[in-house]
Amino acid sequence: MTTVADLTTLRPGEIGDTVQYSHTPDACVENAALKPAFFEWLCRIGDTTLILGHRLSEWCGHGPALEEEIALTNVALDLIGHAQLWLHLAGEVEAKGRSANDLAYLRDALKYRNALLAELPNVDMAVTTMRQFLFDVFHDELLRHLQDSASPRVAEIAAKAEKEVAYHVRRSADLVVRLGDGSEESHRRMEAALERLWPYTGDLFLCDAVDDAMAAAKIAPRADSLRPAWLAHVNSVLDEATLPRPEGDGGVHKGGKTGKHTEHLGYVLADMQFLRRAYPDARW
Amino acid sequence: MTTVADLTTLRPGEIGDTVQYSHTPDACVENAALKPAFFEWLCRIGDTTLILGHRLSEWCGHGPALEEEIALTNVALDLIGHAQLWLHLAGEVEAKGRSANDLAYLRDALKYRNALLAELPNVDMAVTTMRQFLFDVFHDELLRHLQDSASPRVAEIAAKAEKEVAYHVRRSADLVVRLGDGSEESHRRMEAALERLWPYTGDLFLCDAVDDAMAAAKIAPRADSLRPAWLAHVNSVLDEATLPRPEGDGGVHKGGKTGKHTEHLGYVLADMQFLRRAYPDARW
Repeated sequence: MTTVADLTTLRPGEIGDTVQYSHTPDACVENAALKPAFFEWLCRIGDTTLILGHRLSEWCGHGPALEEEIALTNVALDLIGHAQLWLHLAGEVEAKGRSANDLAYLRDALKYRNALLAELPNVDMAVTTMRQFLFDVFHDELLRHLQDSASPRVAEIAAKAEKEVAYHVRRSADLVVRLGDGSEESHRRMEAALERLWPYTGDLFLCDAVDDAMAAAKIAPRADSLRPAWLAHVNSVLDEATLPRPEGDGGVHKGGKTGKHTEHLGYVLADMQFLRRAYPDARW
Repeated sequence: MTTVADLTTLRPGEIGDTVQYSHTPDACVENAALKPAFFEWLCRIGDTTLILGHRLSEWCGHGPALEEEIALTNVALDLIGHAQLWLHLAGEVEAKGRSANDLAYLRDALKYRNALLAELPNVDMAVTTMRQFLFDVFHDELLRHLQDSASPRVAEIAAKAEKEVAYHVRRSADLVVRLGDGSEESHRRMEAALERLWPYTGDLFLCDAVDDAMAAAKIAPRADSLRPAWLAHVNSVLDEATLPRPEGDGGVHKGGKTGKHTEHLGYVLADMQFLRRAYPDARW
């Protein structure tokens, strides 16, 4: 049994599925009418942190500098730790009751609910840093709201995760400023990265009946309600970084949260799920 | 039942495992003492064509020009067709009698016997073209010898494959000359590609007890016996291409044929085997 406070022990081939919560009874988790939407919502946040964590882990051994490599790997571990918590809770909520491991390693792309931003390729440090910044600001904003969730378990996970994400966003915002307002080459690359990623940002804020149900039950805010604060934060950092914000509301590419993914996700899953699928009954 | 003459019908997720040979009884296939070495040897050539075919297929949809894309994809299909024949025969020879599909899709990297050259990344058209040329010359030389094999099945597969590979080697040698003796940029890239790949060429010619057993049974020549003709052919094309041959005998990186692979093979297999491992019982 791992406790919520002890999630840094990750093992290859599994994200862990024995999590102990402080709050044992949670009326939201028990509420049968809420289950389908609650499960979907948990997969959205759980899958997004899992896939982005996996993407960042691809830098392991390839970072541009030792310190940056260690930082990226730590952020990756944090995100995979969050995924473990969200997907474990998803399994509890779900009627079928799958484990976090089964949800992570035995679903195919169409069943994944992550935001598109998370699955986009790393490309270079500029794209990786900009993707992280755009997500971190969203993530931090979301987690701060979730600490007031009507679901004690959601609030507990959010409180734990927010401590880490407050650091993520400080770090990535700082890097965006340093690289945007840096050399001619770093500015050019960061501007190109922002142009490339901006059309995927709208996907983070798309809403549907799942958001309505979560908001009505006071479990989570509607995703679109987070956009004004996100935009204000992003704007202020981009200004300081001397990076012009692309036009449009970022709503060109969308659908990740309902299972419509880019071709990239299939390759991420092939890599990520290989071990578990090749050795289905492996134990250590 | 597909016949040897009809192997271009490839289906996604399988390389086919019903192959009909003209020569039904083959004393070499029946010879129990030969089985372990014969199986290993068939995996070496079968895996090499399979992995190189898969690598080339990665260009599908990304080729630099339509004609080149179609040519590359055709070569990929030829090679995967050869893999189908070699691995089917391997399954017949093997005591366990696995199908070509099982051998292709359910073995992990340590059980793969392909030459290292086949698994190296495509990088760019220069590396892809040079890798293909270095392999095609070897492949053509091998297949011409195998047509005299004491195993009628090996001779039959070789006769069929050699017709295609004679074209492969003409095409890749022609491209090496055009790009090597082309623009300053194409020359520079081809030279860099040759420098990068040369240290992996020795691996093609390494010999061990498997070669001894195959040569003693007159099923196949020892791999090292093919090197003089390979080198003469490679030299003449590189001369015409104005490309200097790197120093050394190309024996820096080795071990593919005994299961010691680069990290790249794991990613190739993760991608290649995903469908079969995710849907083990899928049929169409």
